[in-house]
Amino acid sequence: MKQIYFDHNSTTPLDPRVLDAMLPYLKDNYGNASSVHSVGQSARAGLEQSREKLASLLGCRPDELYFTSGATESNNIAIKGVAEALAHKGRHIVTTKTEHQAVLEPCKYLEKHDYEVTYLDADSQGYVDADQLSSSIRPDTILVSIIMANNETGTLQDIAALAKVANERSVYFHTDAVQALGKMPVNLHELGVNLASGSAHKFYGPKGVGFLFAKVGTRFLPHTHGGAHERGKRGGTENVAGAVGMAAALEYSIAELDTVTNHAAILSDKLTRGILATIPDSHLHGDPQRGNQGTMFFTFPGADGEAIILSLDMAGIAVSSGSACTSGATEPSHVLVAMGVPPHEASSAIRFSLGKDHTIEEIDYLLATLPPIVERLRKMSPQYVAK
Amino acid sequence: MKQIYFDHNSTTPLDPRVLDAMLPYLKDNYGNASSVHSVGQSARAGLEQSREKLASLLGCRPDELYFTSGATESNNIAIKGVAEALAHKGRHIVTTKTEHQAVLEPCKYLEKHDYEVTYLDADSQGYVDADQLSSSIRPDTILVSIIMANNETGTLQDIAALAKVANERSVYFHTDAVQALGKMPVNLHELGVNLASGSAHKFYGPKGVGFLFAKVGTRFLPHTHGGAHERGKRGGTENVAGAVGMAAALEYSIAELDTVTNHAAILSDKLTRGILATIPDSHLHGDPQRGNQGTMFFTFPGADGEAIILSLDMAGIAVSSGSACTSGATEPSHVLVAMGVPPHEASSAIRFSLGKDHTIEEIDYLLATLPPIVERLRKMSPQYVAK
Repeated sequence: MKQIYFDHNSTTPLDPRVLDAMLPYLKDNYGNASSVHSVGQSARAGLEQSREKLASLLGCRPDELYFTSGATESNNIAIKGVAEALAHKGRHIVTTKTEHQAVLEPCKYLEKHDYEVTYLDADSQGYVDADQLSSSIRPDTILVSIIMANNETGTLQDIAALAKVANERSVYFHTDAVQALGKMPVNLHELGVNLASGSAHKFYGPKGVGFLFAKVGTRFLPHTHGGAHERGKRGGTENVAGAVGMAAALEYSIAELDTVTNHAAILSDKLTRGILATIPDSHLHGDPQRGNQGTMFFTFPGADGEAIILSLDMAGIAVSSGSACTSGATEPSHVLVAMGVPPHEASSAIRFSLGKDHTIEEIDYLLATLPPIVERLRKMSPQYVAK
Repeated sequence: MKQIYFDHNSTTPLDPRVLDAMLPYLKDNYGNASSVHSVGQSARAGLEQSREKLASLLGCRPDELYFTSGATESNNIAIKGVAEALAHKGRHIVTTKTEHQAVLEPCKYLEKHDYEVTYLDADSQGYVDADQLSSSIRPDTILVSIIMANNETGTLQDIAALAKVANERSVYFHTDAVQALGKMPVNLHELGVNLASGSAHKFYGPKGVGFLFAKVGTRFLPHTHGGAHERGKRGGTENVAGAVGMAAALEYSIAELDTVTNHAAILSDKLTRGILATIPDSHLHGDPQRGNQGTMFFTFPGADGEAIILSLDMAGIAVSSGSACTSGATEPSHVLVAMGVPPHEASSAIRFSLGKDHTIEEIDYLLATLPPIVERLRKMSPQYVAK
């Protein structure tokens, strides 16, 4: 049975046109981009053309982009690399309670190594307060890291305003832009951030490749030590096919942004209204008014999130309870808890994240399938009292 | 013009059968291996089958293999991860002067952080002395890291004997096995190492994926912090297609080992004899008697290595002056210098590294092309006096 896939925030299928762009680098153009001879230089050309294409799509300079194995690595470089480079200046970092694990875990690591981290609150829609950010910045603050589009709720922070607060205090600003890229125009120079992380497989590119943007002059130390690849900032033979795929994927995503966004808005609206109308006591989290990019994070109190996932899966529908990176964790979503949702309700959370190729029929099928599942699970829950 | 490629130690082309094995995971089977639903679990199955296949080919347990973005990352995890995990026990590491940058640079990093590193000498053939290793081990030694097959000379250390020296003193032993894998049988449990690094693109697999072997019970801390991927040891969405490609590539390499090795031995012998016979004052480094796996590292005193590369490249032949990872560096090979070759001779070094698909005609063409190039360059060198 072909699954209907509503989990595009976890990963997206590779766009067949992107695979076509990669294939020459998986076949004839196989050189090591660091080799001096023409086989190597031909691969190098593909790598650098991809860097230039990405830079032009992202509003930055090519030499501000560093290829990595994905956004987790990029976030690690940004946070630990800045922490190490600026330790002489201070050892305080500001982030939020609603970050992805790939930001929270490097921060927790630093806390074990004599750094201090302030975790900003989120309001009920997931927004961070610029005033709270401002008052959290201290003389020893070296970095602020705030996620652009939340992976679970889709909440879009006003990164330009938040970065301005940090910049005015001469503090570096990093954003995990993974869930924003390919879903909205992102101009890194206009945003005013010093560092940003991206991952190809979130916008129909290949897995295993991402990038770190670091504005010219931003100081950070390398995380992976080896050869002089990526201007000495990231050792390891370059994944040329991956870089080519990432650039092609972002190019297609941006080119088709309006069409995809309009389509997603219509389907998201239908899905949201349908669920709220047919499932009593269902709650949509995040900000329904502003750019959820097809991400809808619901709770269905009384029905266990994991049980809903498995029931939908048997009916041919793929959804998640939040980040795939925390799958298997028994804790309820830390994002919802930070937004004030009680843990017992947070454990009923289901994330629907739409892609570009859905049909109305798929939404109809979901809306026909989900309500009886929630009803059945609630009946099995001794604690749940129907509202 | 199609290049004749004698630079397989830098990278190898992707085997078309390996690409075929990867394609299902670049097309329909696109799930996030950490997702709970069946789309994710189907990807997970591909990942775990690849881990099992690799384990069976490498003589270890599947849960001893951690997927990474390549050997540079693997070496970083092994060296810095053990250093961090065992800092309470000691802060002394032993390695050699002939390691790849991906081992030397993490060691240099640790030296800046209150660790001490002993760099063992190499003899004129590149071998490390087991007695010198033994006497270098101190009560505070926590790790020995020695390359298995040297990337430049092809020198094969007796890893089993060296690991035994470390193990008898209860010190972890790591080997960078990148240039050995796929070129000879490697049984990690029989070798007796605690940690080993591998990279797919060195044995006709894709770039951007590698593995770290860590024997059950070996203590090391993660290097990249994020989700609980790879049993909490390496955050980041799994590169499933890459892992599948790596396993398929190693399987094909091992299956065809005898044929390829015999073929390489014949061609290597022809190339070596031909060069020594036609180019006066040419020197082969490493150990010609023992398993050079198609790697031949020559010096041609009086002719600049970089100039030879460019001249051969114009004639349609791709070779290197050593590690691609140090390309662009103006220093002569640190491996040759460690073996006692004077720097001015080391700067004339050329590495020929054969692959599995060469013809006798390609060797003939090289042997016809190289001598006049060396002769011409020597004539241009004011210092060189013909012998």
